[in-house]
Amino acid sequence: MSQWENNEQSPLSFNPLPSETIPRYAGIATFMRLPHYAPDACDGTEIGLYGIPWDGGTTNRAGARHGPRQVRDASAMMRKVHPVLKLSPFELANCADLGDAPVNPLQIEQTLDLIEAFVTKLTQRNIVPLAAGGDHLVSLPILRALADKHGPMGMVHFDAHTDTWDRYFGGCKYTHGTPFRRAIEEGVLDPKRVVQIGIRGGLYSENDDNWGLEQGIRVIRIEEFNEMGVDKVIETARAVVGDQASYISFDIDCLDPVYAPGTGTPEIGGLTTIEAQSIIRGLRGLNLVGADLVEVSPPFDPSGNTALVGATLMWEMLCLLSEKVAQRKR
Amino acid sequence: MSQWENNEQSPLSFNPLPSETIPRYAGIATFMRLPHYAPDACDGTEIGLYGIPWDGGTTNRAGARHGPRQVRDASAMMRKVHPVLKLSPFELANCADLGDAPVNPLQIEQTLDLIEAFVTKLTQRNIVPLAAGGDHLVSLPILRALADKHGPMGMVHFDAHTDTWDRYFGGCKYTHGTPFRRAIEEGVLDPKRVVQIGIRGGLYSENDDNWGLEQGIRVIRIEEFNEMGVDKVIETARAVVGDQASYISFDIDCLDPVYAPGTGTPEIGGLTTIEAQSIIRGLRGLNLVGADLVEVSPPFDPSGNTALVGATLMWEMLCLLSEKVAQRKR
Amino acid sequence: MSQWENNEQSPLSFNPLPSETIPRYAGIATFMRLPHYAPDACDGTEIGLYGIPWDGGTTNRAGARHGPRQVRDASAMMRKVHPVLKLSPFELANCADLGDAPVNPLQIEQTLDLIEAFVTKLTQRNIVPLAAGGDHLVSLPILRALADKHGPMGMVHFDAHTDTWDRYFGGCKYTHGTPFRRAIEEGVLDPKRVVQIGIRGGLYSENDDNWGLEQGIRVIRIEEFNEMGVDKVIETARAVVGDQASYISFDIDCLDPVYAPGTGTPEIGGLTTIEAQSIIRGLRGLNLVGADLVEVSPPFDPSGNTALVGATLMWEMLCLLSEKVAQRKR
Amino acid sequence: MSQWENNEQSPLSFNPLPSETIPRYAGIATFMRLPHYAPDACDGTEIGLYGIPWDGGTTNRAGARHGPRQVRDASAMMRKVHPVLKLSPFELANCADLGDAPVNPLQIEQTLDLIEAFVTKLTQRNIVPLAAGGDHLVSLPILRALADKHGPMGMVHFDAHTDTWDRYFGGCKYTHGTPFRRAIEEGVLDPKRVVQIGIRGGLYSENDDNWGLEQGIRVIRIEEFNEMGVDKVIETARAVVGDQASYISFDIDCLDPVYAPGTGTPEIGGLTTIEAQSIIRGLRGLNLVGADLVEVSPPFDPSGNTALVGATLMWEMLCLLSEKVAQRKR
Amino acid sequence: MSQWENNEQSPLSFNPLPSETIPRYAGIATFMRLPHYAPDACDGTEIGLYGIPWDGGTTNRAGARHGPRQVRDASAMMRKVHPVLKLSPFELANCADLGDAPVNPLQIEQTLDLIEAFVTKLTQRNIVPLAAGGDHLVSLPILRALADKHGPMGMVHFDAHTDTWDRYFGGCKYTHGTPFRRAIEEGVLDPKRVVQIGIRGGLYSENDDNWGLEQGIRVIRIEEFNEMGVDKVIETARAVVGDQASYISFDIDCLDPVYAPGTGTPEIGGLTTIEAQSIIRGLRGLNLVGADLVEVSPPFDPSGNTALVGATLMWEMLCLLSEKVAQRKR
Amino acid sequence: MSQWENNEQSPLSFNPLPSETIPRYAGIATFMRLPHYAPDACDGTEIGLYGIPWDGGTTNRAGARHGPRQVRDASAMMRKVHPVLKLSPFELANCADLGDAPVNPLQIEQTLDLIEAFVTKLTQRNIVPLAAGGDHLVSLPILRALADKHGPMGMVHFDAHTDTWDRYFGGCKYTHGTPFRRAIEEGVLDPKRVVQIGIRGGLYSENDDNWGLEQGIRVIRIEEFNEMGVDKVIETARAVVGDQASYISFDIDCLDPVYAPGTGTPEIGGLTTIEAQSIIRGLRGLNLVGADLVEVSPPFDPSGNTALVGATLMWEMLCLLSEKVAQRKR
Repeated sequence: MSQWENNEQSPLSFNPLPSETIPRYAGIATFMRLPHYAPDACDGTEIGLYGIPWDGGTTNRAGARHGPRQVRDASAMMRKVHPVLKLSPFELANCADLGDAPVNPLQIEQTLDLIEAFVTKLTQRNIVPLAAGGDHLVSLPILRALADKHGPMGMVHFDAHTDTWDRYFGGCKYTHGTPFRRAIEEGVLDPKRVVQIGIRGGLYSENDDNWGLEQGIRVIRIEEFNEMGVDKVIETARAVVGDQASYISFDIDCLDPVYAPGTGTPEIGGLTTIEAQSIIRGLRGLNLVGADLVEVSPPFDPSGNTALVGATLMWEMLCLLSEKVAQRKR
Repeated sequence: MSQWENNEQSPLSFNPLPSETIPRYAGIATFMRLPHYAPDACDGTEIGLYGIPWDGGTTNRAGARHGPRQVRDASAMMRKVHPVLKLSPFELANCADLGDAPVNPLQIEQTLDLIEAFVTKLTQRNIVPLAAGGDHLVSLPILRALADKHGPMGMVHFDAHTDTWDRYFGGCKYTHGTPFRRAIEEGVLDPKRVVQIGIRGGLYSENDDNWGLEQGIRVIRIEEFNEMGVDKVIETARAVVGDQASYISFDIDCLDPVYAPGTGTPEIGGLTTIEAQSIIRGLRGLNLVGADLVEVSPPFDPSGNTALVGATLMWEMLCLLSEKVAQRKR
Repeated sequence: MSQWENNEQSPLSFNPLPSETIPRYAGIATFMRLPHYAPDACDGTEIGLYGIPWDGGTTNRAGARHGPRQVRDASAMMRKVHPVLKLSPFELANCADLGDAPVNPLQIEQTLDLIEAFVTKLTQRNIVPLAAGGDHLVSLPILRALADKHGPMGMVHFDAHTDTWDRYFGGCKYTHGTPFRRAIEEGVLDPKRVVQIGIRGGLYSENDDNWGLEQGIRVIRIEEFNEMGVDKVIETARAVVGDQASYISFDIDCLDPVYAPGTGTPEIGGLTTIEAQSIIRGLRGLNLVGADLVEVSPPFDPSGNTALVGATLMWEMLCLLSEKVAQRKR
Repeated sequence: MSQWENNEQSPLSFNPLPSETIPRYAGIATFMRLPHYAPDACDGTEIGLYGIPWDGGTTNRAGARHGPRQVRDASAMMRKVHPVLKLSPFELANCADLGDAPVNPLQIEQTLDLIEAFVTKLTQRNIVPLAAGGDHLVSLPILRALADKHGPMGMVHFDAHTDTWDRYFGGCKYTHGTPFRRAIEEGVLDPKRVVQIGIRGGLYSENDDNWGLEQGIRVIRIEEFNEMGVDKVIETARAVVGDQASYISFDIDCLDPVYAPGTGTPEIGGLTTIEAQSIIRGLRGLNLVGADLVEVSPPFDPSGNTALVGATLMWEMLCLLSEKVAQRKR
Repeated sequence: MSQWENNEQSPLSFNPLPSETIPRYAGIATFMRLPHYAPDACDGTEIGLYGIPWDGGTTNRAGARHGPRQVRDASAMMRKVHPVLKLSPFELANCADLGDAPVNPLQIEQTLDLIEAFVTKLTQRNIVPLAAGGDHLVSLPILRALADKHGPMGMVHFDAHTDTWDRYFGGCKYTHGTPFRRAIEEGVLDPKRVVQIGIRGGLYSENDDNWGLEQGIRVIRIEEFNEMGVDKVIETARAVVGDQASYISFDIDCLDPVYAPGTGTPEIGGLTTIEAQSIIRGLRGLNLVGADLVEVSPPFDPSGNTALVGATLMWEMLCLLSEKVAQRKR
Repeated sequence: MSQWENNEQSPLSFNPLPSETIPRYAGIATFMRLPHYAPDACDGTEIGLYGIPWDGGTTNRAGARHGPRQVRDASAMMRKVHPVLKLSPFELANCADLGDAPVNPLQIEQTLDLIEAFVTKLTQRNIVPLAAGGDHLVSLPILRALADKHGPMGMVHFDAHTDTWDRYFGGCKYTHGTPFRRAIEEGVLDPKRVVQIGIRGGLYSENDDNWGLEQGIRVIRIEEFNEMGVDKVIETARAVVGDQASYISFDIDCLDPVYAPGTGTPEIGGLTTIEAQSIIRGLRGLNLVGADLVEVSPPFDPSGNTALVGATLMWEMLCLLSEKVAQRKR
């Protein structure tokens, strides 16, 4: 038998294709080789992996619109059991690929609404959302939908940039450099429960970071990061976000460009994948209600290596989310 | 609404995602953006597009195992109506992506059996099979399954190589250079109803082509092809295969490598895509019962251009098949 | 001496860097190695080459925003004298690189206004504009500016697509698939003096082309093109546009993707570069008042070969424009 | 004089081409620019570098069949003297490129026999074998040949994967994921003298590693590796393999994919090249009787950077082997 | 048995590795899989294939120094029998790979002397030289060596450029744009027996071609080429070079860049490979005493497709040379 | 308004294009988006960024001639304020792109003179030169020009190679492996004030480094580097060069090839970008009178990632230079 059966009326299956018997390059490419269901017909799903193929907020090199498809392809390399956390997300929670959120490449604000509505559909069904972007602006409507359910969110934010700039090109409020300023202004993100990790690169002006710092964001620039070391960073991050509902937003450009050349705004001197994996694992047990992995831009890395990194980090986050889902079921 | 709904119990949908409203890079990558059903649960399907992710018969550069996935990705560029044939395959026949045939990368003969069983499952349900390979050895089990239903097959064979060699590496009978010799020996292919188009490249010995010629195959080498011109080639091909059940097997290396660098055994001096499109269109009305597009090898063309060519030629063949399906329904 | 001196107050120079003494890979990359002047300080310029780094109207794969820079780089390969037309554009007219039109990647309609204002600045100074796009929507504001001076324009339009669709994604009027519908509706393009060459590819519906045909556009699909031959196409094109003010708009996807893989919406089975060069040369003497070369998308061809093709076709068009400028001076 | 003279009857030369006088990109590409002799006519050779162009055991992405040729090309960058070990392998031992082992891309077990016979031919002549793979299954026949001479082998095994799985795809015993299980079962590898370094990535099941651990393999997963540090790892590895005949098997995927993207089963979060070089140097003086460098897959890194890493690590291992050969001569 | 044995004292072998039993990607990469001998120890060789890894005469993009190695790699795709000419070069003449001519990347004139001496060594042994460049300047010392034996040479010259410019960069006489001017001035090339095919691209000045035309060279620009058609071009070329000793020099940039992107000075609008193959075949029977294939520049086409084209054209020329050698033996 | 105005007669502007309003991919590509002036007409310039598009001293893989253009392109990613040093170079000093130094790809010694003359023109106007190479031989004429003004120079030299070899290919004194031997012999470099950081890779002979050590150069090989740590390296470097006029020469191959694959002579096991950035920052306050960034070779990294690294390191050095210029003004 070659494939998961996806149009039965019996209870849905949530098993990924088994790589021991079906080679990884075989079959329709879905996230982690999971079955694909539409959000309207996914009864039983507890964690919904979905794509947001959109880069309408990009100010420099576009291409993240192609991210979900390449990440799906690369995610076929994932296996079932996490070797360090000693758990299998697919046993802890019902996971499925819920397809892509609807988007309009030519309309920014309409798309923000479409994404919010899509995620709201998931949260209303108690499905934990795990997204593959898309540029970083997509985190704004996700946070809106989550805050609607959970209240102002805490966030562990991996990035080379703070993304708290105000406006671009003479007045544009909604760009991939502004989502968290908007989210804080709108009250969907609680700045005192936000930690930003890996920030670096030149500034437009000396005051670039001030607004965020004034709101109470804990910014760990790369120089401080390297001095603190991974364990201290984890400790700080956990302390900042606390016990309440929190989110992980992972911009792939947090990593050094050698690990992730396929992105729009690379900045040299970033995190290694080992560091990123270690920190995510260190967030185990936080009260996570969603996560995203954004800014994978395939045209700038046709090899797919960036997408492999992205897929593996999604897998790491999925492990945390599934454990939390299981805990909540108990 | 973003995606086809694929686990209803009402009659299945066979509409591709509409590119006017859902961008081409969005959504799970299936052939031509069609819904994906398992062969066991695809009631109503009339043409089944499927992949064969396998290159176990390859004697030189492997990689065609990755063909189906990249062709699916590129096929999102197809639209609904053929501008010259003036028809829409999706209106003429119920089309669906039936996933990939099961394969074993480490076992040749077992895989041939698996593929034959998969295609037989389709033919038993009166589904016309349209495959994306895979290396050219996959045509052998397909022909076995088709001949089981239709008797010895005629074939229009596009290729740089005759693929009628006997053995490789001191005794191996089943390779991508031997499928049609085996098919003729087994009686599933009628050599007198076979035409080979685009043959070229050096020979292992002066007698390379003799066996096929002796069986009655009509070989049109590239030099003769260029002298005849497209119209004469079409006329000849139609005359050779006649009115009985026939197959089109399109090895992408039939094309000049500039159009299809992503293949295992490129030979310079081949067909243009315009020539290939014209000939396929010229085969309109033949009694076609299946087709394949093989030897797209993504590792040798990460850009996906070869896959775009392959997907477009699959679309051309799909148009012929759909019209035939519609005629048979009348 | 290594470079043109560009901040004197004596009359400006319009000589390209000489490749006999300064290697092509040396120096700041400007179009054709010409001096770079701002539109406000380019006295004496007769033909202004400029870029439009914008792809905000793109419905599929973005990237044409990077076109001008890569075309500038490739254009260093151009030399001084056209070997067939027997003329040197740099002797016939004062040519300069006028930089890039201002754009906003996040605002469609604002950008159309910015481009129109930029081109109007040129036309007011009697500078003939020659653009490197950018996606095809940029032709709309250029035509607006030109029509303001010259009245409704004729156009020789090279493309795989008619670009006369109405709306995308449920209501978007301004996309790279709609510029010429808008231009005709606005009266800046005279449909009876428009010829479209190289059209091909599947259709969204059977009626895709009808609107344009009803307006009186002469559409030469690729099949008709191949039957007519280049000489007949030239004759037809000249007859259609006539003696009045006309424009050439060259979408690089008119060419077969082997010549131009670096584009957003490739369609197999297109023109060769020899055909394109021949037709452009055949348009010699038309009353041309501007031209553009659009849809070069560097992320999809990092090798720069597409840009080399684009730069060479710009050079071919520059030769026609310069001759016309010289005639008008007499 | 341009090349080594290779068909004299006087004693054979074992000098690499001198890069001070013959540029690195010149000449036939052999390992380290050494003379090429057939194994039947290589009198005096003490270390035989050879290729195994075969990936018939690959379960995911093939391409390692092309490894030897690309590694040969890249190895022209090697020089004569090791700057840290302060030795020149070419002065310590007679080294030669002995070509490629015979293989059959379509037959797994036959190929294992062919490789074993090839290596046995070398061991019978007291030639120390240093291989460039090929996929990791090639280590099995090499170990068979070495154990035939030296008894059960110890091994320092660099890899992201333990390669001690049992079967794939429903019963296949011989794959690149199983060589060391087979080798232990066959008694050619002594599990108590095996150390595995760099293991990581998800598991098929919680018990994946158990079999190896039960046999007594010392597994150093990447997390333990990072805690131990290089010096401790070296100490452990030396203690495990002891004084008896030992082998180094280096799977390039042990390294982080940024150093070695050109491989079939990349796993993020791996060793750096500095770590790998340091550990190999730390193995100096062990009783090494052979080594291999496997899983370089050129189609996934056309730049050749992975091959450069592979060639440099072969050079590091060659230095150890040559010193040992010299010691044994004393 | 895996490899040709190359250090026997019995008569040398001249058989290429058989691709039916040894896969193409196996073994040391030599031209056409032929045995490799040093020029001083190649008794019996009748046609010597050799490389000239040098681009010291390049005025624009360097890289042809890497040409011989990549062409050797690609040439493994060649087989034994020419399907149209119906001959096997390896049966008609003893062919061998004689390695690379010595070169100095930092010294132009010294290198010209080294190449001339190398070729002279071949001609003195009655070995017909077939070179893979290197940039086009390498043809000058080859012609010097050949003329020393045969008198002033005739030449069929395939190229986008005439390569008869006088000087570059203010006085440099020896560049890849000047070899044939120098050869004519030195009397080693007879201009009245030279035909240039495929010339195109812009000119530095109107007089660029005049010098060559005045000497009596027959220049067939691409426009005339396309009007004449292949048969007429062959007829003309044969008439021009006549019965006396002649040479073929094939600059890969004669082809359209889609066939040969890997070259230093691409010009759009060139020959197809089918045209090139047809013309070479049409030169059968001419009194050919050598040939070269130059300007393959691997850094600009890592895929190796350009090298495959180059290797195939070398094979076409080898077939002509071998037939001539056989005729002379009778 | 889109561009800096560059042919006014009022005082020149030295502001880079603002990325907040003009997207980074827009506009002519100059270093750091600075205005471009010719050296003869750049009144007021205090730091001159310039390119040296030349690789005539390269002994292995050429391509650095294309470095300046690709580094200019990548440098558009730089912003205005250094986030750690807390300064803006464009406010501290008048910076401009002064174009490329004149070069001759076919003449080594002439080019050295041309470069020296170009840099002398700058030093005579008190402009601090910051170069983008070009191969490393270009540092020799720069040092000659600087020493003419400042006396024998100190130097912090980042490199995988000492570049103090004597001769190549039997007598060539001027290569990219010899510049600092020549500079020391000529007295323009004071060996006792030279520190070399990151040296590694095999040696031609055991004595390769001896000459430099005997002159008094402080060589920090990579092994010592890793033991010392960044802070100690900075301390040592500062102590070696002292208070007198000093230079930074950064060969991109100092970095590990994963950060800089686009270079001619990669050596595995090098510095990270974080280390490089940290050390450069640690040189703050030294008496720097110039700097260069060399050996970026675009053909070996078409992605431009190497150039991004190069541009960012130029930006780091620019920050030091600008601060020094400002101090001298006080």
